[in-house]
Amino acid sequence: MTQPIDAATTQRLTAAIAAAMPTAQALFDDLAKNTRDTKGVTRAPYGDGEQYAYRLVQECATRLELQCTWDAAGNLYMTRPGTDSSARAILIGSHLDSVPNGGNYDGAAGVIAGLAVLEAFAQAGLRHRADVTVMAIRSEEAGSWFTGDHGGHLGSRMALGLIGASELDTAVRLDSGKSLGTHIAECGFDPQRVKSGPAHLSAHHVQSYFELHIEQGPVLEMKELAVGVVNSIRGNSRLRDARCIGAYNHGGATPQEVRQDAVIATSDLIMRVQRQWEALHAAGKDLVFAFGKLSTDPQVHSLSKVPGETRFSLDIRSGSPQVLATMRAFVIEQARLIEAERQVKFELGEFSLSEPTVLEQPLVDTLRAGCEALQFPVFEMASGGGHDAQEFTRAGIASAMVFVRNANGSHVAEEAMEMSDFELGTRLLGWAVAAQANA
Amino acid sequence: MTQPIDAATTQRLTAAIAAAMPTAQALFDDLAKNTRDTKGVTRAPYGDGEQYAYRLVQECATRLELQCTWDAAGNLYMTRPGTDSSARAILIGSHLDSVPNGGNYDGAAGVIAGLAVLEAFAQAGLRHRADVTVMAIRSEEAGSWFTGDHGGHLGSRMALGLIGASELDTAVRLDSGKSLGTHIAECGFDPQRVKSGPAHLSAHHVQSYFELHIEQGPVLEMKELAVGVVNSIRGNSRLRDARCIGAYNHGGATPQEVRQDAVIATSDLIMRVQRQWEALHAAGKDLVFAFGKLSTDPQVHSLSKVPGETRFSLDIRSGSPQVLATMRAFVIEQARLIEAERQVKFELGEFSLSEPTVLEQPLVDTLRAGCEALQFPVFEMASGGGHDAQEFTRAGIASAMVFVRNANGSHVAEEAMEMSDFELGTRLLGWAVAAQANA
Repeated sequence: MTQPIDAATTQRLTAAIAAAMPTAQALFDDLAKNTRDTKGVTRAPYGDGEQYAYRLVQECATRLELQCTWDAAGNLYMTRPGTDSSARAILIGSHLDSVPNGGNYDGAAGVIAGLAVLEAFAQAGLRHRADVTVMAIRSEEAGSWFTGDHGGHLGSRMALGLIGASELDTAVRLDSGKSLGTHIAECGFDPQRVKSGPAHLSAHHVQSYFELHIEQGPVLEMKELAVGVVNSIRGNSRLRDARCIGAYNHGGATPQEVRQDAVIATSDLIMRVQRQWEALHAAGKDLVFAFGKLSTDPQVHSLSKVPGETRFSLDIRSGSPQVLATMRAFVIEQARLIEAERQVKFELGEFSLSEPTVLEQPLVDTLRAGCEALQFPVFEMASGGGHDAQEFTRAGIASAMVFVRNANGSHVAEEAMEMSDFELGTRLLGWAVAAQANA
Repeated sequence: MTQPIDAATTQRLTAAIAAAMPTAQALFDDLAKNTRDTKGVTRAPYGDGEQYAYRLVQECATRLELQCTWDAAGNLYMTRPGTDSSARAILIGSHLDSVPNGGNYDGAAGVIAGLAVLEAFAQAGLRHRADVTVMAIRSEEAGSWFTGDHGGHLGSRMALGLIGASELDTAVRLDSGKSLGTHIAECGFDPQRVKSGPAHLSAHHVQSYFELHIEQGPVLEMKELAVGVVNSIRGNSRLRDARCIGAYNHGGATPQEVRQDAVIATSDLIMRVQRQWEALHAAGKDLVFAFGKLSTDPQVHSLSKVPGETRFSLDIRSGSPQVLATMRAFVIEQARLIEAERQVKFELGEFSLSEPTVLEQPLVDTLRAGCEALQFPVFEMASGGGHDAQEFTRAGIASAMVFVRNANGSHVAEEAMEMSDFELGTRLLGWAVAAQANA
């Protein structure tokens, strides 16, 4: 459905995006000022900071004459209607909550970019067949806020009908002690409808979902690039509490060759995984891993004893389901080999699996075409962190993402985005949405 | 000074050692019965168990018509006089204390073997130029009993004048809360004389020291050998609290190649040390090592973060001072290389150094000759644990050791020695002492 944008339109759009930047800057400044905490900003889901952000973007949408609607979970939709009411809508979304003491851009940048795109479409007089809707999503940072049994990405999952009814009761905000359902009700929305009503969004009415987000890692910084095209969101396979069992023995009198040294066996496994990474990385595969927790037993270990046990975790992440499967099999196989070679026993436990999200190839191609049309370097990358785009993909809605360069890490107050980079990212987002909407 | 023993004498000695075994068996049985604890045996230095053992061996020595004397520290000397009172004495020694809940043979076997040798010398009508003295040593297991500032091996160091006067006050027995000096006085000996008197033993009066001891490791078991000739006592070089400093980062969004992963860097170091051990072991060098303690920081580490720090210990042991020095240099060099390759910083701290004890080659040769004369397989090995023989060597007295096969580890109740192995070890000890004493 993508339609190429001619050079003149591209130019008009670029100028209009530039003209929309003062609005965006004002929104960022207002948010930073009014949701700031002792350190960074704090926008708790359904809390003061997020509520402030919703009021702010809704006021802006009203000024831009967008049609505003809310769903039962409190997600906000700000729409510029298309010319063909039968065409499925295009969403531009991201979230308005933040982690505690987080940065001003994680989430909000995507919503503000969406508003800038619609302001620019109006400014440039762009007509599009499909409705284009900016969706301000609730509670994407659920992992930092809600304890208890829940599947994260709460706002998008509620909108898409992907949430279990029980999660509204079992997800409890750490700071307030109240359930998700209670928070929804207290903000004036309808938890009962979320539980039992039809999904607000579906592939029948939405054709695609675009999200602009700051990169959470340093890849664009390292590459000296302002924007990247995300082609996948890494899934993970994890060992939460693996053990290597050897034997404690006299550290002086036991010959090295008969020791059942759990530290050497574990180090051997770690370095085999490292070398496997080197091979897969050289072959262009997407993969990162960490043995983030590792310890001998503080109750038993000693400087002068052969270490008889280790405990460790392993987090393997990839944008490719095949690479994850390969690595799982590799770790299990190598552990068996080391067991035989080093007379130890690995109790790995079961690998958890959170499947990677492969973003929609035609949309990725549209973003690549946009980079070329705008004379940006074309750079594809995997996302290391999770995003609402995963949930849209799961719901069968074609999704794509634009990353904007970010300094100093993510989920920290020091997170930093240059407005010049944001403008470039917004240009690419606008171009791709215009192309997708048959502008 | 060693003089070969003719075949007839060897045969006579062998028969006499066999005839002395019932006495030895009775001593072991009596000790096991009367020093037993809830688990294993407990013979605290200057405590009930050790005192019982002293009374028992002194009674035996009296029955064997040996001359008994005590030094100011409470070490007991049981002597069969030689024919030449100007010849320097030969000592056969070991300790009578045990670790708490230890085994019956660790220490006591060496004293009982000495008594068996002197019983056999009498039985065989063997004459020898030099006095042969069985020395029952106090408090070799000081590391398990005495806290505070002290240098271990207390009984032999007091006899040899190697102890600092202050140690008698600073070494405090954990269970009693009393100082070493107080314990010595309470047993009727003379701590003041230990502090200020001349050394009871010196190279002027003692030519050599022989010790039979159970092996603390499984080497003889593995080799299916009853006895081994000890050629060295391993020293060690240790890192007590080394650290590897990397950087904590997002475990999903940080590219693998720019991580400063402290766990991978530490594993890399561990495996390099392992490969270096393989090379030195293949070249016949004596070396064992253990990274006995290893941990990421439990306050900061996480399944989903790149691990930014490890702490670890390293214990390197060898019978060769050169191998210890080589390994220290290797670890420091490899750490520097890994720092550059993996963008981490190792804070190793200083290596401690406890020099290995190389036992007296002529005495080792005498023991080898004894093995041949007795038609035992000749097998030399390093001792992994520390022994009083180190202190005699330090005092300039030529020392050698015989190891007897031991099952189930040492310093545990399960420690086990077969009397048939003990008899073979005692035969070798007797042969070597006879040769050394110009019998």
